[in-house]
Amino acid sequence: MEEKLYGGVEAGGTKFICAVGSGDGTIVSRTEIPTTDVGQTLQAVVDFFKQNSAIVSLGIGSFGPVDLNPSSPQFGFITHTPKAGWANTDIKGSLEKSLGVSAVLETDVNCAGIGEKFFGAAQAAHNFVYITVGTGIGGGLIIDGVPYHGAGHLEIGHMRIPHEPLGDGFSGICSFHKDCLEGLASGPAIEARWGIKPQDITAPEVWELEATYIATALNNLVMSVRPELFVIGGGVMNRGGLIEAIRAKLQTSINGYLDLPSLESYVVPASSPDNAVLGAIKLAATTLA
Amino acid sequence: MEEKLYGGVEAGGTKFICAVGSGDGTIVSRTEIPTTDVGQTLQAVVDFFKQNSAIVSLGIGSFGPVDLNPSSPQFGFITHTPKAGWANTDIKGSLEKSLGVSAVLETDVNCAGIGEKFFGAAQAAHNFVYITVGTGIGGGLIIDGVPYHGAGHLEIGHMRIPHEPLGDGFSGICSFHKDCLEGLASGPAIEARWGIKPQDITAPEVWELEATYIATALNNLVMSVRPELFVIGGGVMNRGGLIEAIRAKLQTSINGYLDLPSLESYVVPASSPDNAVLGAIKLAATTLA
Repeated sequence: MEEKLYGGVEAGGTKFICAVGSGDGTIVSRTEIPTTDVGQTLQAVVDFFKQNSAIVSLGIGSFGPVDLNPSSPQFGFITHTPKAGWANTDIKGSLEKSLGVSAVLETDVNCAGIGEKFFGAAQAAHNFVYITVGTGIGGGLIIDGVPYHGAGHLEIGHMRIPHEPLGDGFSGICSFHKDCLEGLASGPAIEARWGIKPQDITAPEVWELEATYIATALNNLVMSVRPELFVIGGGVMNRGGLIEAIRAKLQTSINGYLDLPSLESYVVPASSPDNAVLGAIKLAATTLA
Repeated sequence: MEEKLYGGVEAGGTKFICAVGSGDGTIVSRTEIPTTDVGQTLQAVVDFFKQNSAIVSLGIGSFGPVDLNPSSPQFGFITHTPKAGWANTDIKGSLEKSLGVSAVLETDVNCAGIGEKFFGAAQAAHNFVYITVGTGIGGGLIIDGVPYHGAGHLEIGHMRIPHEPLGDGFSGICSFHKDCLEGLASGPAIEARWGIKPQDITAPEVWELEATYIATALNNLVMSVRPELFVIGGGVMNRGGLIEAIRAKLQTSINGYLDLPSLESYVVPASSPDNAVLGAIKLAATTLA
């Protein structure tokens, strides 16, 4: 019997990663598509899958907010995203119709979390938080391999944290909240504050401040969610030394109130930039087999 | 057949509430015991239950931190509490031994949450957060009637929130973190900041600031946990108008980023000061019947 194949899409604000695989953590075909307008981008996604082996079903990990409530009229939609042209996009429905297969939609971070749980850095964790620090800041709580949903998906980028003295002159860039976590510590926030793209910044005080904000967010998640592990991905985390600085500042922030595991094993980097697409394929294989 | 009876204890830093009931939300016998030293307090608890009808089992909702990990050598203990004389108290084991019944230990807020879910303000909620604002600040997430545990129980009082300008002269009283949520907004923090007991303070700016801190914590829990509902109890919440002020400030803090239910039905007061002891009885009846 031939092995069944599933499709996975990581729908990002900058690019879409599409891949075909069997749900075991390997990829047989993969492409990246720049995110332009809805019609052009989704057509390129459809073209990729049509050129490949038939897939049984499709998993989609998308930037958000997304509507994951099956009883909602907007179920399967990217809803009121600030990303121009993408608000109220029926990403699940459009791809199902064009490809003739069923699709399952999740947030990008929840798919990345599934990828890390089954194939990456979180295989031993019963309960962990996956965080991305990039164009935005998002996170997902994965319990026994399943993304946790409350009244909706998590929005950890919009928690409020102390606005550190060093950053006092900067008001934050979130269009809803100014100085929430994402408004202070996302890639675009770093660039807006310092006037230089994050990848070109070497000044230690920049990364010291960034580590402080991320560590404060981790402190708050420790207290609110008590995960066994944090896995952190996203472009900003490519900065050498940043994860070590975050660990040290988290230690300072907790200040012995709780007994944490060794920080090197408690706060770890994402295992692969393909974790979300691998998780999306796994999600399709397990829920729409 | 006679109805089975169960014991419930809310172990608080100021008083212990003990009650006997059948697990249906009614209480047949109840007492309050001042919290003094471990020996005297637990003896009074034992005396109460021995004077009453035989109980099948006992539920205990305790102040913390408590060790809820069955594989830990300190399972069933109040661990490193700052409360003098109470650190490393085997509350579950002692009461089991003295009363000759099995006991189940939970946090006080998780028991209060169970009480609110089955008999109180959260009966319709699939997923909600119970918060107490009193001598300390704590919270529990209840999912389908069961307290959520990650690597341990939640410690929401120790999240970090922006230290508002109005409070800048006050450094906070948490012995671990100074100006964490509990260090800024618990009853003792209010008293330390203003030099007056909370129940005697009427100045609007005091309650304005308190509402800001609690609303910021709710904002962070909305983003990190996405509950369907908040139920808030604890002595500080007895202040008239406080919950209304918290709702208004939460609205401002979210600022339209998420669609919340009407705030009057989303942030509600605890239904009863006996919610924790009712929840403890229910927990005993459902897990140790």
